[in-house]
Amino acid sequence: MITGAILIGSEERTSANTFDAVNPATGAAIGPPFAEAGANDVTDACALAAAAFPVFRDLAPADRAAFLERIADAIAAIGDPLIDRATAETGLPRARIEGERGRTIGQLRLFAQVVREGAWMDVTIDPALPDRAPLPRPDLRRVHVGVGPVAVFGASNFPLAFSVAGGDTASAFAAGCPVVVKGHPAHPGTTDLVARAIRQAVVDSGLPEGVFSCLPGTTNDLGGALVADPRIKAVGFTGSRGGGLALVRIANSRPEPIPVYAEMSSINPVILFPAAAAARGAELGRAYVASLTQGAGQFCTNPGLVIALAGSDLDAFEASAASALREAAAQPMLTPGIHRNFEQGVDALAGHPAVRVVARGPVGDGINQAQGALFATDADAFAADPALGHEVFGSSSIVVRAADMDAVAALVTGLEGQLTATLLFDEADEPLVAPLIPLLAEKAGRVLANGWPTGVEVSHAMVHGGPFPATSDGRSTSVGALAIERFLRPVCYQNIPDRLLPPALRDANPYAVARRVDGVMQPA
Amino acid sequence: MITGAILIGSEERTSANTFDAVNPATGAAIGPPFAEAGANDVTDACALAAAAFPVFRDLAPADRAAFLERIADAIAAIGDPLIDRATAETGLPRARIEGERGRTIGQLRLFAQVVREGAWMDVTIDPALPDRAPLPRPDLRRVHVGVGPVAVFGASNFPLAFSVAGGDTASAFAAGCPVVVKGHPAHPGTTDLVARAIRQAVVDSGLPEGVFSCLPGTTNDLGGALVADPRIKAVGFTGSRGGGLALVRIANSRPEPIPVYAEMSSINPVILFPAAAAARGAELGRAYVASLTQGAGQFCTNPGLVIALAGSDLDAFEASAASALREAAAQPMLTPGIHRNFEQGVDALAGHPAVRVVARGPVGDGINQAQGALFATDADAFAADPALGHEVFGSSSIVVRAADMDAVAALVTGLEGQLTATLLFDEADEPLVAPLIPLLAEKAGRVLANGWPTGVEVSHAMVHGGPFPATSDGRSTSVGALAIERFLRPVCYQNIPDRLLPPALRDANPYAVARRVDGVMQPA
Repeated sequence: MITGAILIGSEERTSANTFDAVNPATGAAIGPPFAEAGANDVTDACALAAAAFPVFRDLAPADRAAFLERIADAIAAIGDPLIDRATAETGLPRARIEGERGRTIGQLRLFAQVVREGAWMDVTIDPALPDRAPLPRPDLRRVHVGVGPVAVFGASNFPLAFSVAGGDTASAFAAGCPVVVKGHPAHPGTTDLVARAIRQAVVDSGLPEGVFSCLPGTTNDLGGALVADPRIKAVGFTGSRGGGLALVRIANSRPEPIPVYAEMSSINPVILFPAAAAARGAELGRAYVASLTQGAGQFCTNPGLVIALAGSDLDAFEASAASALREAAAQPMLTPGIHRNFEQGVDALAGHPAVRVVARGPVGDGINQAQGALFATDADAFAADPALGHEVFGSSSIVVRAADMDAVAALVTGLEGQLTATLLFDEADEPLVAPLIPLLAEKAGRVLANGWPTGVEVSHAMVHGGPFPATSDGRSTSVGALAIERFLRPVCYQNIPDRLLPPALRDANPYAVARRVDGVMQPA
Repeated sequence: MITGAILIGSEERTSANTFDAVNPATGAAIGPPFAEAGANDVTDACALAAAAFPVFRDLAPADRAAFLERIADAIAAIGDPLIDRATAETGLPRARIEGERGRTIGQLRLFAQVVREGAWMDVTIDPALPDRAPLPRPDLRRVHVGVGPVAVFGASNFPLAFSVAGGDTASAFAAGCPVVVKGHPAHPGTTDLVARAIRQAVVDSGLPEGVFSCLPGTTNDLGGALVADPRIKAVGFTGSRGGGLALVRIANSRPEPIPVYAEMSSINPVILFPAAAAARGAELGRAYVASLTQGAGQFCTNPGLVIALAGSDLDAFEASAASALREAAAQPMLTPGIHRNFEQGVDALAGHPAVRVVARGPVGDGINQAQGALFATDADAFAADPALGHEVFGSSSIVVRAADMDAVAALVTGLEGQLTATLLFDEADEPLVAPLIPLLAEKAGRVLANGWPTGVEVSHAMVHGGPFPATSDGRSTSVGALAIERFLRPVCYQNIPDRLLPPALRDANPYAVARRVDGVMQPA
């Protein structure tokens, strides 16, 4: 079933160079060998994608929605082999992978709804005013269309929801853009299974083969060649800051620069307010560690920073968290490289003169185990060394003690852009909370109360994005219905006869979409 | 009335370095001397803008709309002195400047309507589902907010509509972003008058002074320092490709990169189809030259390229255009530098071995006169040398002869990104037109039929943008209601108590905006 081939449209290719899938919990290779895609494969996949674009872009919304639903069905139809494979390749628990499959399928179905409803087209019509003085107004009609073929980079930490058929691919397809995936080498078998499901949906939908290709590989050169290909018009990426910025640099130095939507780096500040700390500090400490250690802490929205007022209530929170961490079972990380980076990050914090080690988790049996780490420092030290605010990917977090709310506000103001900011407070805290909300909204794409940032709903209102360096484009989200906008551009048609217009703009409104006519919204 | 000062919020500053306004038609300096803003002025203006941002961002839509309308009123109230000054500084005809004033005022009023209606906030609410299995859904509410202070670079060719209070400033204000303008040195007196009008509106609206500052100056260093200032969060620019790309480079190399919306370079292809050429070639030739020479050709949407099938009908079109050009009066260009670049561009085309000079316009009396230029070449030569497809800013255009419609399609496919693409056709041409429309829509932000690209309506449906290098961000427009989106970002609030939410997201909907609730649009 898994052949390890390169998928260029409907073609399967092998390569002299191969690489292995590895079970990170055991270090064992899992067959088959996977072909390394090369420069020719990139070129051919992009040429097919460009050829498919005009057809795919102009598909009726109902047809594109049906394609998304066929992908969802095809992924569901893989059944247990997909769960088994993803579990083996990532070391993540089975229940987590099953949940992620549900999320991935639900995401595809959400985008099918979005495509059908058609608000993304933002159809806007300014009818001609032939008698206007001093000059007549022409007939002007605007619609949003796909930008062209999109390169998607699978993420290591969500082998389904942020990978081959994840949010980037689903939203690019929804926008009418063919996709060329660079598969993440940490889960090539999962990649293969999902890629084949998409390919089957392409066939079943009667679409041009170039709508989807998948390039397995391990090298930066492969990803670089994909971003540099002139037929690629946008990039979706979830991963490290270094990786994201490398792709941004390549995209910016093309003869025609293109947008890169890289979701990169966030420490997701949590602010614990005094009344909440007093009333339920110990309980919050335990919940904090549960969020921190979930999935070995390998979440973009992992709570890597807690800010609170120094005092006995914070001591209790910290003691409770320390105790919970010491009991949190170690888990294997996704790859040896991720584990190595985690250990280096933790060692650097542990060796920092201004940082105190509050607790470490159990060492764990076997290889690549994430040994959780909880640190503490004070506001001045945190502000003095930007390195203390950098993400350590995995279950590592730091508690920063502030003397008063002014110091908390100063810390928030000094933060880099974030995916999330969390407020833990009771009603008595609200006078302190209110002025911080606008500050946090400037720093983060999502501001949440009395919860934990891990757990990103796939819905209409979600924002999984934020100012740099949380992402490379703070005007966007990579999760939720709004993600489609990343892959759209507006086109205006002036005085084009009705029969020559794209159907969405014709008077008869064959797609039955809501339209803004002469400035006034008209429901579908 | 015009003092030549640097305006930092409510403060007026002078400088030891000054520069003069010059009447390009005569070369005469027009007083007073204008202060050159420097690095300190940039720093102080940006600090004030950052301080003003939280207040201005959170203003009720009705209040921000009233501010925009006060600016419109204040510009209108300047009266004839504004028209006189802009005419003297640009060499543009009085009627053109009067029309541009009307456009500028209308643009501000359009954005006031846009702000009041509130669709730009895209308020989206996914109510909590506490009983959902396996996990409850939190309450999620999303709104779009301003990105922060915006740097706006005035353009030389529209001293009102694309300058101090032009579309970039109007849309940034509409989004809730303070603006720091780098005034264009070609019209510093016009800049001064309009800047004071905005400043008066800031005072009359009771807004923090930092909502607006204006930095006159002549150096690239000034603009570079403005884009590099960490408090600036986005840039609006209209001008040359070199200038725009320089700002993009500075923005990309900041510790926190920011978006630059640079509208830069376009030759605005016009495709003349056979039946139209046969039926009305001579008439179209005259209309072409009228569009080409308007305002000395100093329009971003100037028709710099005509593509048509070789033959006697094209000969007639060309002969008619040549005759019209020889009779089109020369006009002064905006600055000696622009005139020099125009002459160099025309000389290069005239000396190109594969290019034929079809006609030149009259030489003109006085300095800085644009002598119109019409060239011809064939499809192979045009395709062989990319230099033939570069913009020559001014009344220069080239007619490219193609052997058949396949050659036309190949030429279109080879074009860079454009602001506009124009189709001149009769009903009999439609079978040839239909397949070209999608090709052109991939290349240009606006596709128009049987008109001329000069003339950009300020309305809801307009797109004045296009793929690179027409702009640095092909997902946007710098004219029309959609321009506001350039300066917005989404923020999601999760489980925040109603009383702590921004008003736009509260259950009571105090701004009475349309909202998407649980995926369904609810009218205002």
